[in-house]
Amino acid sequence: MNFLAEIREKKPLVYNITNQVVTNFSANGLLAIGASPAMANAPEEAKEMAQHADALVLNVGTCSTSQAEAMLLAGEEANKRDIPVILDPVAVGATTFRAEVVEKLLNRVSFTAIRGNAAEIATVGKVDTQMKGVDSLVDHLDDDIALKVAQTYETTIIATGKIDVITDGDRVFTCENGTPMLPFITGSGCLLSAVIGAFMTIGDDALMSAMKAVAGYGIAAELAMEKAAGPGSFLPAFLDELYYLKDETIAQKERLKNRSGEGQ
Amino acid sequence: MNFLAEIREKKPLVYNITNQVVTNFSANGLLAIGASPAMANAPEEAKEMAQHADALVLNVGTCSTSQAEAMLLAGEEANKRDIPVILDPVAVGATTFRAEVVEKLLNRVSFTAIRGNAAEIATVGKVDTQMKGVDSLVDHLDDDIALKVAQTYETTIIATGKIDVITDGDRVFTCENGTPMLPFITGSGCLLSAVIGAFMTIGDDALMSAMKAVAGYGIAAELAMEKAAGPGSFLPAFLDELYYLKDETIAQKERLKNRSGEGQ
Amino acid sequence: MNFLAEIREKKPLVYNITNQVVTNFSANGLLAIGASPAMANAPEEAKEMAQHADALVLNVGTCSTSQAEAMLLAGEEANKRDIPVILDPVAVGATTFRAEVVEKLLNRVSFTAIRGNAAEIATVGKVDTQMKGVDSLVDHLDDDIALKVAQTYETTIIATGKIDVITDGDRVFTCENGTPMLPFITGSGCLLSAVIGAFMTIGDDALMSAMKAVAGYGIAAELAMEKAAGPGSFLPAFLDELYYLKDETIAQKERLKNRSGEGQ
Repeated sequence: MNFLAEIREKKPLVYNITNQVVTNFSANGLLAIGASPAMANAPEEAKEMAQHADALVLNVGTCSTSQAEAMLLAGEEANKRDIPVILDPVAVGATTFRAEVVEKLLNRVSFTAIRGNAAEIATVGKVDTQMKGVDSLVDHLDDDIALKVAQTYETTIIATGKIDVITDGDRVFTCENGTPMLPFITGSGCLLSAVIGAFMTIGDDALMSAMKAVAGYGIAAELAMEKAAGPGSFLPAFLDELYYLKDETIAQKERLKNRSGEGQ
Repeated sequence: MNFLAEIREKKPLVYNITNQVVTNFSANGLLAIGASPAMANAPEEAKEMAQHADALVLNVGTCSTSQAEAMLLAGEEANKRDIPVILDPVAVGATTFRAEVVEKLLNRVSFTAIRGNAAEIATVGKVDTQMKGVDSLVDHLDDDIALKVAQTYETTIIATGKIDVITDGDRVFTCENGTPMLPFITGSGCLLSAVIGAFMTIGDDALMSAMKAVAGYGIAAELAMEKAAGPGSFLPAFLDELYYLKDETIAQKERLKNRSGEGQ
Repeated sequence: MNFLAEIREKKPLVYNITNQVVTNFSANGLLAIGASPAMANAPEEAKEMAQHADALVLNVGTCSTSQAEAMLLAGEEANKRDIPVILDPVAVGATTFRAEVVEKLLNRVSFTAIRGNAAEIATVGKVDTQMKGVDSLVDHLDDDIALKVAQTYETTIIATGKIDVITDGDRVFTCENGTPMLPFITGSGCLLSAVIGAFMTIGDDALMSAMKAVAGYGIAAELAMEKAAGPGSFLPAFLDELYYLKDETIAQKERLKNRSGEGQ
């Protein structure tokens, strides 16, 4: 699949119900790869917005009761229409409210993918772990935890960290693209979730879409670091690299490894 | 009129009730041209905020019931005080909720200007058209539609696209300044609406304010493209160019055309 | 105290209930200095979020009734846990609603510091002054007003302007670091309030934390101006400089003056 070439041709509408910190960055990142972002939070229009969408991304980073309602309505409609739905359970372990919102979403919406740091994914899977705010305390989620969470929710898990772990509950891949600067950029995980949403509108292998999205995102970050002096100058350089990123560059530079003993 | 020179001297307070995606970019863009931005959404303070304002900009991009109420209260107060009020009907065709909010605003508030892409303006004018999320499907609104919408609402219409159409229901101008990079920047239309608000605090010819704002905005974008590598590096370069933009530069580089057969 | 070295080691969690305009910039600025930002607005989780936090920053820039409730709950919990709480009373003089929110906060929460422009601090202290939107009309708050407000609320006052005034109600310092570009960046004061929050997690002299935070912030801005062409290019350069800022650089370049006749 030529994911980026197809995204730039089809301009899939990626509907985001996301946190206030990353709305601008997520929209600009989606535009950079050629997708068409839509952001809206009102429950009154969530179902109808989902009817126009090619993918839906739900991010609980600054969730309110009203926004959670919008997420449920949009998620159910997206499931009816069979479009990809991505969950980003930001800091799900931090508060009871957040845990309850995520629980309700997992009960009522079927997710094509769940993207979080290792601690968030472990929390979603009810694996005991420690949380410190929105930061992961572990660098790399164990394969068996990732597999278990993917199987429990019949979804694709993308657990990001120093090494990213990607699994559909059957196959497990790791990705080592990226740069240590990414954690210094707020919303770098949130935008990746949105980018995964865009990649999942292309083809019909969610795992492959996730792998290429994660690798491509990390490669763009690596290329941006060649031009950046720090996290501030990284931001414009990264959007530039996402804009110019090509499927061929992903194929050349991806550092994906099959951990499940199957061919890629 | 020396719009920018006067804005920089008077520092007009532009009160924005706008969407979450563009608050930061809009505020920074208004500061760059020398205006004084205020952002606030609570209905409890909307009337009083409008009492301090020199212009009001209403943008329905991520509207909620509560924010819509604030818009109505601020809009009515702004009308009482006779300050310019600008409507940005973001993706008005996308949902019933959005259409109803815009309908209510148009019924209760008199707008000095409405700025949208061609599809949004056509929808406001109840002209049948197709909408795809927040993106326009047409490059250039027909003159007769723009004229009709301006006449219906007794307002100035700014329909942006590859070619921008600007009309007060009598005279029609086009503007061809700008760059194809602008649609890759989220909120590039929203910030233009806010900039039009600032320009409309100067002089008493709304059409001329709109024309100069649209041309100046496009020229700043053209100059920024000379320094930008992609959409990421365009963003800081564009704010820099807005900061240094001069009335003389607009006069030299504006690509405005009178389509109504009258002298400019 | 080596504030920055300790922040980078401890990564204090700074919980911000702040305005929509500055969430992204505040989070990126906190990450740049090595702190760990958390942003959340729901009253349902405010108390629990405050239980994880090392500092709390309350900013009323786009306050709603719901967000004000979250601020009270988080503030009371933070007081119970004895962590630093910083108030940023954005445009407190602009509306009755805003004044009432700030009044309620001051009645129910004990603040370690209050950071605002001169007009905002004067308004908090019920000193008659003029307000024009969110902009200060005075360059430099009188020492006696700053002292009085600090004594009234038993807090540290940071009144920013061309010259910053910092006082704990006993000692008064001024800081002359900074650049005239800062007022052209939306949220430059808001981010400073958050940075003060991070500095106040280190050591036990709130005045010293405030002085070093204000000086360091101004120095990073000075260094960024050496690379910036305008306010747009200032933004990434400023985040880069915050990322590389060292305690030694603050010690070398700080322009702090003791105005109370005591040794620094």
